[in-house]
Amino acid sequence: MCAPGCLETVHNRLDRRAFFKGAGATAAAGVMAAAYPPKPAAAQTRSFERVVDMTHTLSPEFPTYFNRPGIEMERMTAIADDGFNMYRWSVIEHAGTHLDAPIHFSRGDQHTAEQIPAEQLVAPLCVIDIKARAADNPDARLTPDDIKAWEAQHGPIPDGAAVAMNSGWDQYAQTEKFAGRDADGRMHFPGVHGEATQYLLEETGAQGLMVDTLSLDYGLSTSFDTHYAWLPSNRWGLENLRNLDQVPASGATVVVGAPKIADATGGPTRVFALV
Amino acid sequence: MCAPGCLETVHNRLDRRAFFKGAGATAAAGVMAAAYPPKPAAAQTRSFERVVDMTHTLSPEFPTYFNRPGIEMERMTAIADDGFNMYRWSVIEHAGTHLDAPIHFSRGDQHTAEQIPAEQLVAPLCVIDIKARAADNPDARLTPDDIKAWEAQHGPIPDGAAVAMNSGWDQYAQTEKFAGRDADGRMHFPGVHGEATQYLLEETGAQGLMVDTLSLDYGLSTSFDTHYAWLPSNRWGLENLRNLDQVPASGATVVVGAPKIADATGGPTRVFALV
Repeated sequence: MCAPGCLETVHNRLDRRAFFKGAGATAAAGVMAAAYPPKPAAAQTRSFERVVDMTHTLSPEFPTYFNRPGIEMERMTAIADDGFNMYRWSVIEHAGTHLDAPIHFSRGDQHTAEQIPAEQLVAPLCVIDIKARAADNPDARLTPDDIKAWEAQHGPIPDGAAVAMNSGWDQYAQTEKFAGRDADGRMHFPGVHGEATQYLLEETGAQGLMVDTLSLDYGLSTSFDTHYAWLPSNRWGLENLRNLDQVPASGATVVVGAPKIADATGGPTRVFALV
Repeated sequence: MCAPGCLETVHNRLDRRAFFKGAGATAAAGVMAAAYPPKPAAAQTRSFERVVDMTHTLSPEFPTYFNRPGIEMERMTAIADDGFNMYRWSVIEHAGTHLDAPIHFSRGDQHTAEQIPAEQLVAPLCVIDIKARAADNPDARLTPDDIKAWEAQHGPIPDGAAVAMNSGWDQYAQTEKFAGRDADGRMHFPGVHGEATQYLLEETGAQGLMVDTLSLDYGLSTSFDTHYAWLPSNRWGLENLRNLDQVPASGATVVVGAPKIADATGGPTRVFALV
């Protein structure tokens, strides 16, 4: 259980300087979104033979960025007494395998969860592997060079793609290493470097950015460069993905079962890869 | 807003006789599930060209079976103050376009939401149209004859299929006709006849049953024959589907983005058809 005030600790990490830097980045990203709008995937026949579940099971024990339970469940009915079983959930939107809707880090009229077009949620999946570097350094980040190396091998990131960082971190989901909190409360897990995010915005038509860790930005981030550049450009994010080792680096389709809930800034999401 | 006690009204509709009939049906269904287990879809390459969103937007105004808001949202952070936007939801599992996990109406160890195998949630979609009859009679039900007529035209219901009743009711989702409450509080909307459910269990390998109304059973039901036969056989249900007119009767694939939440009896679900 997180003591009262722990969410405030998170807020405090967004210190004024970082926050106004973020606000500036937001304005810049708004301009950039106009210059580089997300591009739809090319119309084509897509095929698959098997389904890979890329979703962690959400429970009160699943680690959260905020270090408090992401969900609490209250039983409303029991079959022995009422004829059927039913719960009510109290759930934090950004818990478990979950969507970051553009509005999560935006000041403008960027999409809330239910406004993201369905076509953007069924996307060509590009998996970029940084496991070796992350194994040596939990503060590793996906860089422009990683993307360029992927493109050299697999061709350009396709329009409408969802780009996933595979840091191997899903294996730690049930351990303290997942958040990697140190004695000072700082977190250590991999994320996407702001420069890689800029590269994706400027050089590709990708519309989704996915990570197998708690945050698009790496654990040490206090300026949230990737959140503040990517989401205000009206693109979506996805955190706490799993099973990226079970899908090919290129050629699969990801289906993002984002919650269709009015005004939501994200939410627990079922994710499948069609391979 | 529903007055206190309205959920109890629902419970009271499950009177003792109906409930014990239901319990008996549960035991029988347990036996039947052993005799007629859900069958996996045949391994084959599946293709699609477009995505159809079959999900209603859930908001506090969306009608629920229980006549109370299915979701309430509490703002946790605001970008102007905290640097990002985030809500906490209080949500009833059986609200909006949502899954009925087998455990919802089961006494045994049938699947909770997160236990349903992913392969069962990507299924051949069979849409059975009863719109003409439902237009004349809101108490219309899908019958074995409807299924047989579909099979005469499209061939046998495939193993692993998700069978959907298209009553045309999605068009009423924002109106009082959706629940169709009369002066006595009884509801009038279409559902699946218990005999049709028996037919699907005994004669087909279908594993999902979907409706475009508030309940698998029709609004007038007090015995919940379909719930008590289908779900305890370890098959899943899906309620409040939309856009069934936008998909073919046969040949599409449905992707059921069921919540992967520990112990859940169902939950709001993103549903796409791949056509």
